[in-house]
Amino acid sequence: MNAEQATEAIRAIRFVERAGTEVLEVAPGRCVLRMPFEPNVNHFGSMYAGALYTLGEVPGGVLFFATFDAERFFPLVKSSQIHYRRPANSDVTVEATIPRQDVERLEAEASAHGKAEYDLVLELVDRDGEVVAEMTSTYQMRTHGSLR
Amino acid sequence: MNAEQATEAIRAIRFVERAGTEVLEVAPGRCVLRMPFEPNVNHFGSMYAGALYTLGEVPGGVLFFATFDAERFFPLVKSSQIHYRRPANSDVTVEATIPRQDVERLEAEASAHGKAEYDLVLELVDRDGEVVAEMTSTYQMRTHGSLR
Repeated sequence: MNAEQATEAIRAIRFVERAGTEVLEVAPGRCVLRMPFEPNVNHFGSMYAGALYTLGEVPGGVLFFATFDAERFFPLVKSSQIHYRRPANSDVTVEATIPRQDVERLEAEASAHGKAEYDLVLELVDRDGEVVAEMTSTYQMRTHGSLR
Repeated sequence: MNAEQATEAIRAIRFVERAGTEVLEVAPGRCVLRMPFEPNVNHFGSMYAGALYTLGEVPGGVLFFATFDAERFFPLVKSSQIHYRRPANSDVTVEATIPRQDVERLEAEASAHGKAEYDLVLELVDRDGEVVAEMTSTYQMRTHGSLR
């Protein structure tokens, strides 16, 4: 899956497509996404809080499908916390990574128990590299058929 | 400000408009909003997590402008936490309220210090009244000119 294919995949969610969310880079264990400024501006002239949240939510799925075997596993977001640090006045990007040892541990745990939980901690940065928001989300990785 | 005017006001944020977010009821100290299902469905066939988040984010502004004097004060969202409880398979609504005594306390505090902080705790419910997500956001109420 290259960045173009991943962008197409996330845009299957029309909410994500409407915002113009884009995958810039993707590889097993790592992805970089961008949220464009212009269609997501708020009444103060900076990026709307919900657009920043969405930029921080989508990498969970991209990283998952770039890293794990979708024939065996799928992700569920359980909770998210976002801290807004400063107004974003440009496009915003985010990089998400998962270390190789976590991948192996989660695969083993989910294979044994049907599910495994992990946190993804992200920084959303503006064009100047300033952190505009920090986000921590808790995901559950599940094996197919593990939900009633 | 009636519900129609409030809907028009929130749709000044195009991100919010594109999702079809609607104000159903608004009065000082209380508002009810709805997120329609159809334009916000995800790849699992339920409402996308970012749409639920947006439904929980917008009431902070609606409630603020329905309750406080916008000539004197404005709101900033500082952080939000959302817990996803179950998939939402219908339109989702949320009610937000702020008690009268909190309104008076916050007005006094912001008038004296330029700012005051408060939490908004919300339940997002589906058509059957089931809670699909819980959200707590921290807002800062500020007097105009209080930001450098």
